[in-house]
Amino acid sequence: MNALMMSTLSAAALLVSLNLQAAPLSAEDQIEYRQAGYSFMSWNMGKIKAQVVDGSVPFDAKQVQAAANVVAAIANSGMGALYGPDTAQDKMGDKTRLKPEFFKNLEQAGTLAKNFNAAANALATEAATGDKEKIKVAFGEVGGTCKACHDQFRSKSK
Amino acid sequence: MNALMMSTLSAAALLVSLNLQAAPLSAEDQIEYRQAGYSFMSWNMGKIKAQVVDGSVPFDAKQVQAAANVVAAIANSGMGALYGPDTAQDKMGDKTRLKPEFFKNLEQAGTLAKNFNAAANALATEAATGDKEKIKVAFGEVGGTCKACHDQFRSKSK
Repeated sequence: MNALMMSTLSAAALLVSLNLQAAPLSAEDQIEYRQAGYSFMSWNMGKIKAQVVDGSVPFDAKQVQAAANVVAAIANSGMGALYGPDTAQDKMGDKTRLKPEFFKNLEQAGTLAKNFNAAANALATEAATGDKEKIKVAFGEVGGTCKACHDQFRSKSK
Repeated sequence: MNALMMSTLSAAALLVSLNLQAAPLSAEDQIEYRQAGYSFMSWNMGKIKAQVVDGSVPFDAKQVQAAANVVAAIANSGMGALYGPDTAQDKMGDKTRLKPEFFKNLEQAGTLAKNFNAAANALATEAATGDKEKIKVAFGEVGGTCKACHDQFRSKSK
């Protein structure tokens, strides 16, 4: 899948190059697609959590690997293209929780995105080994990078 | 990613084994997550189409590969777990377009799912080579497997 190769592209470069791709999408569509990506990642993060953190579901290495592959593939998909300048709360109201501050701090946003991509790819790499303890650590790292961006750029409510 | 290995599991087995995983999810959540998965695949299928079929966006092998990896990873994620018996239109009304007939034809649904998985993994394999013409053919195959299931089990409207 060359996931690691993809992660070496800087997040800033992704944000710039993939915005070209997003040009035909309306702000509403950009928001819908990015929320879909995060929602589907959330389902898959939940499956990993249940199996490697909570233990509420028996550990199944193949299921965890499939879930980690989803998180990595979505992370590598160039979601920067879904963050057009008109897609924050100041323009889109309750359709999104994205703070307008995001667009005043694109360098920081790029760094947070890069950290998330790296952690997601590391999780997929560990998941491929089937080592539950290492997967647990890598899962925690991904969660930390999610939270870092939420704390900075996601509003508490719509 | 072992995507091809995953695809060798029969779709029927996936439907059965992964329903265990879905137990804690409400019907509403199952619908939300599966719609998120299809929506995010749709964005990525659209990117591939624009680059290899329409030519409306310049072909970028890395972007196409990343998009194909998303489609394959989502296809391999065990979405059968999101098709609990209470999640069709007869129970959920306008929240879904899934026809109740789906649950009377699980074997056929499993075959359609298996065909989709195989086509999605083939697309990811071709995308990794960067051969635009072969990617175009594989993309068409995926689209055909999407349509086959829509024709059979997706209502025209909510």
